[in-house]
Amino acid sequence: MNPGDRVRVERAGERHEGIVMPSSTADHVVLKLESGYNVGVDRDEATVEILETDVYDIEEGETSATSTVTFDPDLPTISLLTTGGTIASTVDYRTGAVSAQFDAEDVLRAVPEMAGMANYRGRVVRNILSENMTPAVWQDLTQVVQEEIEAGADGIVVMHGTDTMQYSASALSFMLDTPVPVVFTGSQRSADRPSSDNVVNAVGAVQAAKSDAAEVMIAMHASASDDTVALHRGTRARKNHTSRRDAFETIGAEPLGVVDYETGDVEFRRSYRERDAVELSVAPGLETEVELVKFTPGMDETCLAMVREKEGVIIEGTGLGHVHTDLIGKLDQLTDRGTTVVMTSQCLDGRVCDRVYDTGRDLLDAGVIEGADMLPGTAKVKLMWVLANRADVDEAMQTSLAGELTDRSVPWT
Amino acid sequence: MNPGDRVRVERAGERHEGIVMPSSTADHVVLKLESGYNVGVDRDEATVEILETDVYDIEEGETSATSTVTFDPDLPTISLLTTGGTIASTVDYRTGAVSAQFDAEDVLRAVPEMAGMANYRGRVVRNILSENMTPAVWQDLTQVVQEEIEAGADGIVVMHGTDTMQYSASALSFMLDTPVPVVFTGSQRSADRPSSDNVVNAVGAVQAAKSDAAEVMIAMHASASDDTVALHRGTRARKNHTSRRDAFETIGAEPLGVVDYETGDVEFRRSYRERDAVELSVAPGLETEVELVKFTPGMDETCLAMVREKEGVIIEGTGLGHVHTDLIGKLDQLTDRGTTVVMTSQCLDGRVCDRVYDTGRDLLDAGVIEGADMLPGTAKVKLMWVLANRADVDEAMQTSLAGELTDRSVPWT
Repeated sequence: MNPGDRVRVERAGERHEGIVMPSSTADHVVLKLESGYNVGVDRDEATVEILETDVYDIEEGETSATSTVTFDPDLPTISLLTTGGTIASTVDYRTGAVSAQFDAEDVLRAVPEMAGMANYRGRVVRNILSENMTPAVWQDLTQVVQEEIEAGADGIVVMHGTDTMQYSASALSFMLDTPVPVVFTGSQRSADRPSSDNVVNAVGAVQAAKSDAAEVMIAMHASASDDTVALHRGTRARKNHTSRRDAFETIGAEPLGVVDYETGDVEFRRSYRERDAVELSVAPGLETEVELVKFTPGMDETCLAMVREKEGVIIEGTGLGHVHTDLIGKLDQLTDRGTTVVMTSQCLDGRVCDRVYDTGRDLLDAGVIEGADMLPGTAKVKLMWVLANRADVDEAMQTSLAGELTDRSVPWT
Repeated sequence: MNPGDRVRVERAGERHEGIVMPSSTADHVVLKLESGYNVGVDRDEATVEILETDVYDIEEGETSATSTVTFDPDLPTISLLTTGGTIASTVDYRTGAVSAQFDAEDVLRAVPEMAGMANYRGRVVRNILSENMTPAVWQDLTQVVQEEIEAGADGIVVMHGTDTMQYSASALSFMLDTPVPVVFTGSQRSADRPSSDNVVNAVGAVQAAKSDAAEVMIAMHASASDDTVALHRGTRARKNHTSRRDAFETIGAEPLGVVDYETGDVEFRRSYRERDAVELSVAPGLETEVELVKFTPGMDETCLAMVREKEGVIIEGTGLGHVHTDLIGKLDQLTDRGTTVVMTSQCLDGRVCDRVYDTGRDLLDAGVIEGADMLPGTAKVKLMWVLANRADVDEAMQTSLAGELTDRSVPWT
């Protein structure tokens, strides 16, 4: 049995048919199934039947990866940081589905197309699914980014699960003043699937990390095809589809830029902060006692009771920034107690304006701060940062600190 | 001082310049300001200076509305129901901004373009801003719709605030089997503003109510221009912008149909339920002890404590339908206690699938139901209805009852 053979493996009553992968070890046979997923089977007590030999041309890159880490003094140095997620994932041997377990060198080995573009350094910050991301990890990640930039990295690529990438990118946008690009990227389809987006996204992220835009960005597929990667400002991006490869979008505007996958050209469509425009500076403090509450019709006022002890609350209201009139008194009590309450809109696009209708004016009278055109999730992360770092909380929440909101006179579109 | 004159009015230290409107009364002068808003000023102790006479051609329709309610036996009968909102709003004389106060006849008077299209009956169900909409109002509205259809209405138009229109349209979609169209419409800009969308939307809604599609729909501007009204299925629509006139979109597909404003033609682009395909039937029960909880990174488990006593909870998770692993045990406790927990995605577009990653499989083990591709808000309304009307809650939540979800084999796009 050799890599590339099609085999049937039986063990403990389970039977799998697939192609033997070169990542098989002395203990496990790894099979690529027809579904596109890999499965690992313990060799112990397994029976193997070879159905066909050499049916699959194993890509050379997969076995020749160590050569890509040779240092080339003519190339910039990009730090690859992994936090986990699909792009850094391998097969979960327990069940046959995908679970997170990879380090930076594995990512580079998995994407031979990244060779020759840069010198790479790799560090594992975490190995978690991104739904498990926490403010503490944002702080660790920020510290590693700082260390890498201080050590001379010309750009940073952060491998991250797509579920909460927009929140992490927002967090680093506020915590970090960066003189080099910091580019989040991930994958909507695991590397084992023919439709995987991991190569295009990773290559696009490296190109962005080599570019002139010293911002925190998200680099993900721009369309259903494989030719363009969109670069989204970290504070304005949103995952708008559960599974599409082009799930990420800039809300209310076109992306900051695009990377042509074939040529490697990076084209910016809006103004950005240039490389070395600011000194490296980190403000890692975060107030974690901040929650987001989405208002929907029929919502019970007990839903506000839960945030009674919090330092900050983001309301995801309706329309221009409204909740049921009966809840306004509860919000008034919160602000009286010292909780900062910021209104955003579940419409996601457009600007909160609580000066048009009675409900809105009553909210302002209750001490609620208008969240301008901030995305609700970005507003939550920002409030965490502002409460820990700024004395002028109201003013800071209504001022653009990292491109997260616009003045009324400078619309996104 | 006559309607159409430009005047300056001073009273109690406040000064306004504008055009005198015909809606001025013996007690109030109503001025159209340059901002597009109207303001009412108490005539008592006010001083008036006429700046220019006859600068504004007051539209004839505004004074000749009563003729539009003459019965024409050759036209269908459309019931206009108002619940309030911008489309049914007039000026708030207290502050100069917009507040809800209108009845159905006033709406017809305000939109003379609706004359000659149908015979109208008008009923006021409520006069509230739609952020104050509740399940009890949905039930009252459903009852009025039932009465109007039983009394011979060929179609229903519901004037509704845009903030929560999608929730109300979803509610009626589940509570009502209708043999005639039930069309929600509203306005993003008040009738006093030159850019108001109230005429185009109201006319489009009446055309839809005369059409062959016996569904609960939302009729709102299809684009920034004034030529087309989109018809969205009530369970698939979402207000995606705080202020744009084309804020409403069908998620994951093109709209059900469009109305050409000039020609009045209604063109359907997808299949729909035809007029008289079902008998009129109403199931008004709603379990109100249902909440929606949006998961974001850093969320405290106390956010789930608040829903401990609830009958149903919709989770707006990340990606394919995830929450932080630490919260799964809490959800398990909820389902053990008998609370129905349904997972949806804050991505909004795309399908929940908790069979790919560990987190998802652990959620399923905890008794959480996958919400397919339902919008989170629609899922909340549906769960209210299902808990009150169906014994097979799990099965019903995963089955399309009113076009709110698709089988995997019938994608929206």
